[in-house]
Amino acid sequence: MWNKVDNKLTKKFEFKNFIEVCAFFSKVAIISEKLNHHPKIIVEYNSVQIELFTHDKNNSVTEKDYNLADAIDKLS
Amino acid sequence: MWNKVDNKLTKKFEFKNFIEVCAFFSKVAIISEKLNHHPKIIVEYNSVQIELFTHDKNNSVTEKDYNLADAIDKLS
Amino acid sequence: MWNKVDNKLTKKFEFKNFIEVCAFFSKVAIISEKLNHHPKIIVEYNSVQIELFTHDKNNSVTEKDYNLADAIDKLS
Amino acid sequence: MWNKVDNKLTKKFEFKNFIEVCAFFSKVAIISEKLNHHPKIIVEYNSVQIELFTHDKNNSVTEKDYNLADAIDKLS
Repeated sequence: MWNKVDNKLTKKFEFKNFIEVCAFFSKVAIISEKLNHHPKIIVEYNSVQIELFTHDKNNSVTEKDYNLADAIDKLS
Repeated sequence: MWNKVDNKLTKKFEFKNFIEVCAFFSKVAIISEKLNHHPKIIVEYNSVQIELFTHDKNNSVTEKDYNLADAIDKLS
Repeated sequence: MWNKVDNKLTKKFEFKNFIEVCAFFSKVAIISEKLNHHPKIIVEYNSVQIELFTHDKNNSVTEKDYNLADAIDKLS
Repeated sequence: MWNKVDNKLTKKFEFKNFIEVCAFFSKVAIISEKLNHHPKIIVEYNSVQIELFTHDKNNSVTEKDYNLADAIDKLS
């Protein structure tokens, strides 16, 4: 589930190891560039945290963020 | 199952789309560099074909190839 | 330079090692999905060969292939 | 230059766009798994920030961190 915190939409995805983390990163990277909307992505050994917000709307959460959140959920 | 054809160990992995193909490629790339043995990898829209052989042993199949084949099978 | 051979547009890119190969693969993967046109990509230890053709036009070379070729040239 | 802040070794790498960011991420991911030492990696549209510390040494900076920092510098 995505949380709305501090004007961002965030979700942390957990994986069994770093190789799975990198595979998920690849998928998020491709879909982000395709939708032309780029999250902040925080990668650690077994997790990928994603933070979504829209720079040109005062860093608030917009429809672009919800669309990318949906697309990312369909990847995992 | 890996096939031994023309002095190579080959296997074709199929996926539902190109994003899944790229995620699998990432995993194969990392494990190959980690094991210091590099396959030929043929990427198409929904498949990744891997060909394993050892350059310094007259392009024949060696234990390094079987080890990488095992490691790749554990990724998918 | 891209070569037109057997109804395909092909080019081989060479790199100093497999890590550089993987970085280039990432870039080609992202731009291909963004342009919604997917090449055949043949990865070896220090090279990436790309083959472009359009499936729904009798596997001939079309404007989509030239566009992706241009985009790939701008990546490297 | 790497900064030592809060018991971490950190460096921010900047790029012209997200595709270059992803290519660099691929390289850092491969070298990290190869050296079996995994940084925190913070990816944004045109930057990759890396934070190095060793979990099993009270989250302090150790030789493993300096080695990975060197290896990452050689990638970019």
